[in-house]
Amino acid sequence: MHSTQPISVGILGATGTVGQRFIQLLENHTFLRIAALGASERSAGKTYREAASRSWKQSSPIPSAVADLVVLPCKPDHFAECRIIFSGLDADVAGEIESHFQAAQFAVFSNAKNHRMNPLVPLLVPLVNADHLDVIPHQRAARGLDKGFIVTNANCSTTGLVVALKPLQDAFGPLARIIVTTMQAISGAGYPGVPSLDILGNVVPHIGGEEEKMEAEVAKILGSVRGDGGGFAPLEGLRVSASCNRVPVVDGHTESVFIEFERRPAPSVEEVVAVLRAYRPEALTLDVPSAPAHAVVVLDEPDRPQPRMDVLTGGGNSVVVGRVRPCSVFDVKFTLLSHNTILGAAGSSIMNAEIAVAKGLI
Amino acid sequence: MHSTQPISVGILGATGTVGQRFIQLLENHTFLRIAALGASERSAGKTYREAASRSWKQSSPIPSAVADLVVLPCKPDHFAECRIIFSGLDADVAGEIESHFQAAQFAVFSNAKNHRMNPLVPLLVPLVNADHLDVIPHQRAARGLDKGFIVTNANCSTTGLVVALKPLQDAFGPLARIIVTTMQAISGAGYPGVPSLDILGNVVPHIGGEEEKMEAEVAKILGSVRGDGGGFAPLEGLRVSASCNRVPVVDGHTESVFIEFERRPAPSVEEVVAVLRAYRPEALTLDVPSAPAHAVVVLDEPDRPQPRMDVLTGGGNSVVVGRVRPCSVFDVKFTLLSHNTILGAAGSSIMNAEIAVAKGLI
Amino acid sequence: MHSTQPISVGILGATGTVGQRFIQLLENHTFLRIAALGASERSAGKTYREAASRSWKQSSPIPSAVADLVVLPCKPDHFAECRIIFSGLDADVAGEIESHFQAAQFAVFSNAKNHRMNPLVPLLVPLVNADHLDVIPHQRAARGLDKGFIVTNANCSTTGLVVALKPLQDAFGPLARIIVTTMQAISGAGYPGVPSLDILGNVVPHIGGEEEKMEAEVAKILGSVRGDGGGFAPLEGLRVSASCNRVPVVDGHTESVFIEFERRPAPSVEEVVAVLRAYRPEALTLDVPSAPAHAVVVLDEPDRPQPRMDVLTGGGNSVVVGRVRPCSVFDVKFTLLSHNTILGAAGSSIMNAEIAVAKGLI
Amino acid sequence: MHSTQPISVGILGATGTVGQRFIQLLENHTFLRIAALGASERSAGKTYREAASRSWKQSSPIPSAVADLVVLPCKPDHFAECRIIFSGLDADVAGEIESHFQAAQFAVFSNAKNHRMNPLVPLLVPLVNADHLDVIPHQRAARGLDKGFIVTNANCSTTGLVVALKPLQDAFGPLARIIVTTMQAISGAGYPGVPSLDILGNVVPHIGGEEEKMEAEVAKILGSVRGDGGGFAPLEGLRVSASCNRVPVVDGHTESVFIEFERRPAPSVEEVVAVLRAYRPEALTLDVPSAPAHAVVVLDEPDRPQPRMDVLTGGGNSVVVGRVRPCSVFDVKFTLLSHNTILGAAGSSIMNAEIAVAKGLI
Repeated sequence: MHSTQPISVGILGATGTVGQRFIQLLENHTFLRIAALGASERSAGKTYREAASRSWKQSSPIPSAVADLVVLPCKPDHFAECRIIFSGLDADVAGEIESHFQAAQFAVFSNAKNHRMNPLVPLLVPLVNADHLDVIPHQRAARGLDKGFIVTNANCSTTGLVVALKPLQDAFGPLARIIVTTMQAISGAGYPGVPSLDILGNVVPHIGGEEEKMEAEVAKILGSVRGDGGGFAPLEGLRVSASCNRVPVVDGHTESVFIEFERRPAPSVEEVVAVLRAYRPEALTLDVPSAPAHAVVVLDEPDRPQPRMDVLTGGGNSVVVGRVRPCSVFDVKFTLLSHNTILGAAGSSIMNAEIAVAKGLI
Repeated sequence: MHSTQPISVGILGATGTVGQRFIQLLENHTFLRIAALGASERSAGKTYREAASRSWKQSSPIPSAVADLVVLPCKPDHFAECRIIFSGLDADVAGEIESHFQAAQFAVFSNAKNHRMNPLVPLLVPLVNADHLDVIPHQRAARGLDKGFIVTNANCSTTGLVVALKPLQDAFGPLARIIVTTMQAISGAGYPGVPSLDILGNVVPHIGGEEEKMEAEVAKILGSVRGDGGGFAPLEGLRVSASCNRVPVVDGHTESVFIEFERRPAPSVEEVVAVLRAYRPEALTLDVPSAPAHAVVVLDEPDRPQPRMDVLTGGGNSVVVGRVRPCSVFDVKFTLLSHNTILGAAGSSIMNAEIAVAKGLI
Repeated sequence: MHSTQPISVGILGATGTVGQRFIQLLENHTFLRIAALGASERSAGKTYREAASRSWKQSSPIPSAVADLVVLPCKPDHFAECRIIFSGLDADVAGEIESHFQAAQFAVFSNAKNHRMNPLVPLLVPLVNADHLDVIPHQRAARGLDKGFIVTNANCSTTGLVVALKPLQDAFGPLARIIVTTMQAISGAGYPGVPSLDILGNVVPHIGGEEEKMEAEVAKILGSVRGDGGGFAPLEGLRVSASCNRVPVVDGHTESVFIEFERRPAPSVEEVVAVLRAYRPEALTLDVPSAPAHAVVVLDEPDRPQPRMDVLTGGGNSVVVGRVRPCSVFDVKFTLLSHNTILGAAGSSIMNAEIAVAKGLI
Repeated sequence: MHSTQPISVGILGATGTVGQRFIQLLENHTFLRIAALGASERSAGKTYREAASRSWKQSSPIPSAVADLVVLPCKPDHFAECRIIFSGLDADVAGEIESHFQAAQFAVFSNAKNHRMNPLVPLLVPLVNADHLDVIPHQRAARGLDKGFIVTNANCSTTGLVVALKPLQDAFGPLARIIVTTMQAISGAGYPGVPSLDILGNVVPHIGGEEEKMEAEVAKILGSVRGDGGGFAPLEGLRVSASCNRVPVVDGHTESVFIEFERRPAPSVEEVVAVLRAYRPEALTLDVPSAPAHAVVVLDEPDRPQPRMDVLTGGGNSVVVGRVRPCSVFDVKFTLLSHNTILGAAGSSIMNAEIAVAKGLI
């Protein structure tokens, strides 16, 4: 039922792990066409095949449609034919470059952390808070733009978590406290990323900045848009405490979550499972081709979810939840899994763009 | 400074992972001498070298002193020269066999779960509750024994946790609530244990019975002995909620711990670290040769503890804690690591036996 | 260009690793329809979903079309509606059961080793020796059958090797000597298969029976059919020496191959690469839907092939070769990779069946 | 029975993987004392504890004796109190720096490749060709030195191989041809070394320069010293062909070796095993404290050697051989394992220094 005209897109940070995922996911997209690829000065001028020769680590080869594209420097002038910009740039350069593209009237969908907490930038998890796009008109007005804007997605470990929390918040009222321990995959660290001597047969109990991001982003994402659409009202009452760890897994972040509701009596395990299974976010009601059939899939098997078997659920865009059970300290606990470079990065950016198109913002 | 006479010991379940650890750890013991090895009927009659040929997976070879010992069936008559019995038997046979040895007047130190929650059996974590041995006279009296008894150690994931909790409870008063997520090593599952297809590059978010054990054992271990020594008074107020996971690590359980104290204001991070570092349990004041120099080692590096670098701290009998920091939901959170087959199993049994000898119970 | 009528197939050993691959690969087959599933007595009577609940380890779920099929005992009477039988049975039961199905007039395509060296059974590597099916009339005659027959595929590590050797033999004359060292994935050992304590961070330098299989099977596969179609003439002159190892990889066998030709001067590296790339076996000229576009893909990158990036080439049915270079001891050496449960097992059985249908044998 | 006076040593490249191994191995050395540590300009001026804080990856902590040493730039003036210099420098700086130290009269024992093939530099595998030190007087004369010299050890994968080949060559005459495939551990690549995305669950079939090194070094090591001691006579007739691969193992290189002797009839498997077990190189007859009890240990178990269980044999300085069996293409084949950073690097340098001291060269 799709009738959108083709839209040309550019990818910044095309040779990185997230850039590679964009390229993979857009290979057969119904209306988004990769027209230009941007990367560092070192890569600019080479074909993508050359530039990515040492860093392409996907299980399928570089799509022929992009292999011969000449990589460009990340400057707006080079991307004139694009309307949408997907950014997988590193945080050390993303802030400035993305602002330039925004100012040059591009619709920028970023994976970087730099603009996430900006009070006029939607921190968009496509299966959670599509309504936060209501702030775009204000963002444009504030910058004197009519077309350009920046939308960010969330940190990979935040993303899976909030997709599970949102329906519970909607159904059962405010969440009081969340404790979460993550077991994160190595692909989240890019390439060369985590040295093998650090992670082979090992656990690294620290991922720089990750816990802080989770704790801050959850509040903004689960919060609302201010009445006048002029900004966001992050959740005030919710407290989140995280412990983030790296484990020897290639793709898929596993999270052990403990939830306390404000409401008494708290919902039962059965109610929680039913709500998760029934969750149908706005994105699933719009023309969002990349959206999975189910935002949340709940498994009954006692030893699930697992990266090996569940990470590609919904094409990597579903959150898989298992082991939903009572918690003797809080109310309920469970384990969730999400694909860290698909839902956790490029997949969400793509869905965000599809939502923006569906909402007439592009 | 040790003057104990040599004591002969027998090991039940000698060919299993825990049995192998006993053999390794006792190789050069100052006064415990392995005199007899017991295993299943299938192994009985073979030399240990033969019986363990397909299952010995340690990084050093079978000590020559035991390689030629003929493996015996696990019947008390065969162990007449032993005074101490170390059991690494599986739970499906341990209950009955250990009771027989107890009745036959042996001092049994078990790693199995069967007798752990028995109201007259000390659930002994050597670096935490050595005083629980005070119940042994009552256990003997209740069974009409003068020498025999059973002492169990704790589940591997419980052990590291309570070593860290005990000094905090002693210094700051009752613990109110604990949430813990474990990332457990494969050696804890024995051999053949966890299939490689399940764990290579994967996380398994369930270890059967593990969370229940942690939640029940903590209360008994951190509880006290009843005034009359006639039994135990498990902690009443403490609530513990666990999530246990298997990760691709060979040795070393990592645990992400979140603690709430009853006391207000709660202790600071600095106070917690100081108390952990200063912790000197009773075992470190007795003649316990296998005890580590420090029960708890606290590291300051931001990405520690890690199995690769820290699992052999204190010869595998220390608990290593890192990332002690404030928790926005509870009071403090940190990561701890312990060796799951040394402190978590055989090492603790050996220290328990040494403590019992030091206390004149053997 | 496909016009074959639907053919019903049965899968024996449906709950095993190879059985699971059959089910995955046949999910959307153009003309082969899974009509019946067979497994052990223990599984018989349960739905496939139940029977495979503890052993299904694929990265996508059990296809709904088979999940509710009731598993049957492996007796011909239960498979009456099938014309083709795919067997992933273990060697301890395969020999007898497959003979029963053959005698009951089924076209049996087996992955087991039992019948491979039988002088009237084609040891068929679909991309190498499809002509060996010429022996089927003789096999039928010898057994007094008009429809039934047995065809086996080869051992997983043999399969990838012979696909690379065949075009070289065809182009350059007899191969004199081959030395090969394999680095094999764990999925080849089934489930529970290789214990994780054996393989995590380790290499096991022995796979029982594997080297012998490679050495014997290569001679039969690269040999010819006797003039009268009454049997096979294995290669006489070729000597093969193998060393088979297990490494911590889930899917994909890597092989380091050293080749000496009889011909002098030996072919150059460029000639070898050209011949491999040009290889178009008979299967690629028939209506064989599962055949890959290229039997052999040769990569130029210096560090390829690798399981992570290349194992799914050709849907898992291509052999990927890299590092083709001169050998100072023999003539040429290279590294090859093949998917051990697709090309190495179920994929080859399916292609064998498609070839047999194309040749009018079914 | 050791009577050598303490000798002060310096370690260049102290923060790298090889440097860390030197520090670990020298911790309790009977006569070698670490007096100075050298590293890059970036590290110079910091204590070793600070400089190595992000790169120390050993399973035991930095020895207190060196933790507070201030790291120095790699200039001879800073090492005046040392007589022996151990170098674990990277090849990009090793050549020049080691020459400076040689010229400044230090006895330099290097792990780097730069000087290995120099016609006056012994390429010394301590358990193989200690007699190659006879060239040192010529080296000194050629450089106008009376004390200084350079000795290198061999590449890690060459080292284990030649320790097994040497006794066979001595007992059975010239080796004609060797084919070897290696499966190398990640620690050999240093830190950060191999990215985890490259090696987790993967095999990388290429290690830059490794095959060339193996092929060239074997000839020099197994060759002899020219009659006048003025240089080396590398083996002429022996042809070696290698294929080097990286596997997901932390420590320990496994090699699959195929050997053809010139002599006919070739020795039997039993003769080969007997010769390997009886091998007693010169180093085992001198005062070489770090030498293992056995240069080669031959195991009879069918699935050995394995890194997990065998890599620390002889303190990491033995070569472990298994699966010695007939080869249908050559004469005999087997699998060998050696510790790549102990025997393969620091352990050999230390033994080389001990031999040089024993021979009065220091």
